[in-house]
Amino acid sequence: MVSCRALAVTMALMVVTVGCNFVKGYPEEDLVVRLPGQPKVGFRQYAGYVNVDSKNGRSLFYYFVEADKQPDTKPLTLWLNGGPGCSSVGGGAFTELGPFYPTGDGRGLRINSMSWNKASNLLFVESPAGVGWSYSNTSSDYNTGDETTASDMVVFLLRWFDKFPELKSRDFFLTGESYAGHYIPQLADAILSYNIHSTGYKFNVKGIAIGNPLLELGRDTSATYEFFWSHGMISDETRGTITTHCDFSNLHNLSQVCSDALKEADTINGYVNNYDVLLDVCYPSIVQQELRLKQMATKISMGVDVCMTYERKFYFNLPEVQQALHANRTRLPYQWSMCSSLVNYRDTDASINMLPILKRIIQNKTPVWIFSGDQDAVVPLLGSRTLVLELAHHLNFSTTLPYRPWFHKDQVGGWVTEYGKLLTFATVRGAAHMVPYAQPSRALHMFSSFVHGRRLPNNTHYSPDE
Amino acid sequence: MVSCRALAVTMALMVVTVGCNFVKGYPEEDLVVRLPGQPKVGFRQYAGYVNVDSKNGRSLFYYFVEADKQPDTKPLTLWLNGGPGCSSVGGGAFTELGPFYPTGDGRGLRINSMSWNKASNLLFVESPAGVGWSYSNTSSDYNTGDETTASDMVVFLLRWFDKFPELKSRDFFLTGESYAGHYIPQLADAILSYNIHSTGYKFNVKGIAIGNPLLELGRDTSATYEFFWSHGMISDETRGTITTHCDFSNLHNLSQVCSDALKEADTINGYVNNYDVLLDVCYPSIVQQELRLKQMATKISMGVDVCMTYERKFYFNLPEVQQALHANRTRLPYQWSMCSSLVNYRDTDASINMLPILKRIIQNKTPVWIFSGDQDAVVPLLGSRTLVLELAHHLNFSTTLPYRPWFHKDQVGGWVTEYGKLLTFATVRGAAHMVPYAQPSRALHMFSSFVHGRRLPNNTHYSPDE
Repeated sequence: MVSCRALAVTMALMVVTVGCNFVKGYPEEDLVVRLPGQPKVGFRQYAGYVNVDSKNGRSLFYYFVEADKQPDTKPLTLWLNGGPGCSSVGGGAFTELGPFYPTGDGRGLRINSMSWNKASNLLFVESPAGVGWSYSNTSSDYNTGDETTASDMVVFLLRWFDKFPELKSRDFFLTGESYAGHYIPQLADAILSYNIHSTGYKFNVKGIAIGNPLLELGRDTSATYEFFWSHGMISDETRGTITTHCDFSNLHNLSQVCSDALKEADTINGYVNNYDVLLDVCYPSIVQQELRLKQMATKISMGVDVCMTYERKFYFNLPEVQQALHANRTRLPYQWSMCSSLVNYRDTDASINMLPILKRIIQNKTPVWIFSGDQDAVVPLLGSRTLVLELAHHLNFSTTLPYRPWFHKDQVGGWVTEYGKLLTFATVRGAAHMVPYAQPSRALHMFSSFVHGRRLPNNTHYSPDE
Repeated sequence: MVSCRALAVTMALMVVTVGCNFVKGYPEEDLVVRLPGQPKVGFRQYAGYVNVDSKNGRSLFYYFVEADKQPDTKPLTLWLNGGPGCSSVGGGAFTELGPFYPTGDGRGLRINSMSWNKASNLLFVESPAGVGWSYSNTSSDYNTGDETTASDMVVFLLRWFDKFPELKSRDFFLTGESYAGHYIPQLADAILSYNIHSTGYKFNVKGIAIGNPLLELGRDTSATYEFFWSHGMISDETRGTITTHCDFSNLHNLSQVCSDALKEADTINGYVNNYDVLLDVCYPSIVQQELRLKQMATKISMGVDVCMTYERKFYFNLPEVQQALHANRTRLPYQWSMCSSLVNYRDTDASINMLPILKRIIQNKTPVWIFSGDQDAVVPLLGSRTLVLELAHHLNFSTTLPYRPWFHKDQVGGWVTEYGKLLTFATVRGAAHMVPYAQPSRALHMFSSFVHGRRLPNNTHYSPDE
């Protein structure tokens, strides 16, 4: 633990009283002393705001959690959820890879023993403004898109590092999922561009990893229906109609026959969680009633609490939780919700092809991992895998690791392939769109390999035939 | 419970002593009083032999279990496992749909609360001779195939009904899985043929249901690699090679390029349970050691004991278990095992196309259900679904139920479609090759619908949007 030398003598008495709970060079006012209902832990959390545009009053909310052990020796990882317009604090931090999950009654927290803070310090940011507790005093700021989201994030990071100067030179990883398939490559690209032009500070980006990422809308959309078909969710006939009549490269001009078939496919799958076709669905009306009545709403399917999203929303809207997180300082006129209805995101940006940007990042020698929970019908592995292969071709990369299973706890954690030693594609077996949510242990194992610059393990201790 | 009027006066005292534990017209000598380590239950079990060829000394072992409640009012269902050469008693009865599972230490039994004996009386037969405890005194009898297996089963059933005359006129359902996709249609066909020619007794077959059935070898084999690919288990490149170079309609003459690609695909999936790609694998060496040491070998993955097959083998080879089951009366010179290495099954029979036989059965107004656990790579839904559609076309059947989800406990149990009101295809979500093993509750629900002649339920009580 870092010493308290920075503390002024005048604070000595207070330190003796409350304990030395913050770190030299970290913003004391952002220290989260304890979250309501939180189990005792040995690492520190910080949360608060960073202004990215003082004139417009645009400010992004962050949640930073130290690595569980020896945070000084561990890298820093940024995590962004997608949407566009969804919360990284609600998603990544409190239902996926952060140190805590909400409890079943939505009034407290429980430990996530597979938190990625076992391997890294973690930074979650509500981006762009309008998401979660991030806001702007200028409502036109909520009209946004990929470019401004990325440039705001660069400003955010520079100013956030001013709050946490110790971390400026730390190995820095950029990660996220879903629409963060746009956010993260574009942010990495903006950072590389900043580094080229900066005569002073340069970001120390060591790699990017994106899960079930939107990379190329046409391919990713067509993969959804291929996934439906191959998982028994639509008939041979419907798939036949889609294959014959749908031109996914021209999504804005689909034929009537195609649209009807897609509509039918979507309708008959309305009762399945398309983000994880294995999990049961949570029925909001029941869980919301139970949360009001202070009953446990937890509903377990395949070992996963499928109602966690409702428990999280309940928890985040408790005034004492917002106070403890230094959140909602401007008394926003709406509740915290996972995905913003405020943000008016430029919908044509979804069609931007990420492959050229990823190519640039990789050509800059930055390792890129694309991972894919194999139970996700929304951005399925069937699109991502092919796009990664195409990217490898664009880079003239040879296969440096043939497609093979990777292992965790002597079982197959998924399958993996690598191109040119810089581009990795990995599936996570039994995982969802939100990979760490459905398979926390396999996800942590994969993340640890990524930040250590190691390939996913090649072997088990056992042979199936022994 | 049936009265004991049939009992002779001379037995009255004994009845008073041991209780009236057998049923009028049921073979007293086959009554299984209690299996070692078995929890107390309210229904009866019978087990023993039926000779199918006295000259050769060919005899089939059966295990019959009454319905849990009101067995007199419930139908009779035959269940056969596949292989060819695998045990219906070990598979169906004691790890899938029977009333008991082995305990983790392989020394006792626990209740399967989702046993299909909630809906029907159940008959399991070791077929053909050479499987499990079925045997022949003439070793050439172990050279067998589809035709003799079916004709032996007809003889078996006629003689078994002599033991259980009360059940002769009961509604009779024929079910099974995997290679029973051959056994069951061929048995049904033989029975229909028997019924046509018999001037006396006629079997009262009311329907057949086969799970993940081998129906057409070429299509079913090609579906395995399509399944591998769509579930992230092989690369785009390997799938491309297979698609281009493999002619699965001519399995005995595959090109070298094709064979190499299939070999690679099989090799990289050697560490996954191909019968259920979600489940972890059980490592035999560990579990066998643990069973010897009387430790609990149970290893749970997705709620399923993946080591159950080893616990079962251990249990079935306990002398007291064989004694209680009236099994192994001839002291066979080998251990009980799930699949026989003794049976020399004609391998060309696997190529017999089942569609014409199924067509005949359906034209005889016998309802046919094909169901498919959607996590099975061995006989995947991708082949079965297409074959059922083809069969519907051969029958000139229209779609009487469009492809849609079916529900159980307000969640999607799978997807279902129906043709001509007689032919049903249903998937079971999250289920394996052994459907009732991985999804006992959904499997029982499906089976109950089947024996009641009901469609799978169309709706949940809840809407996902509520």
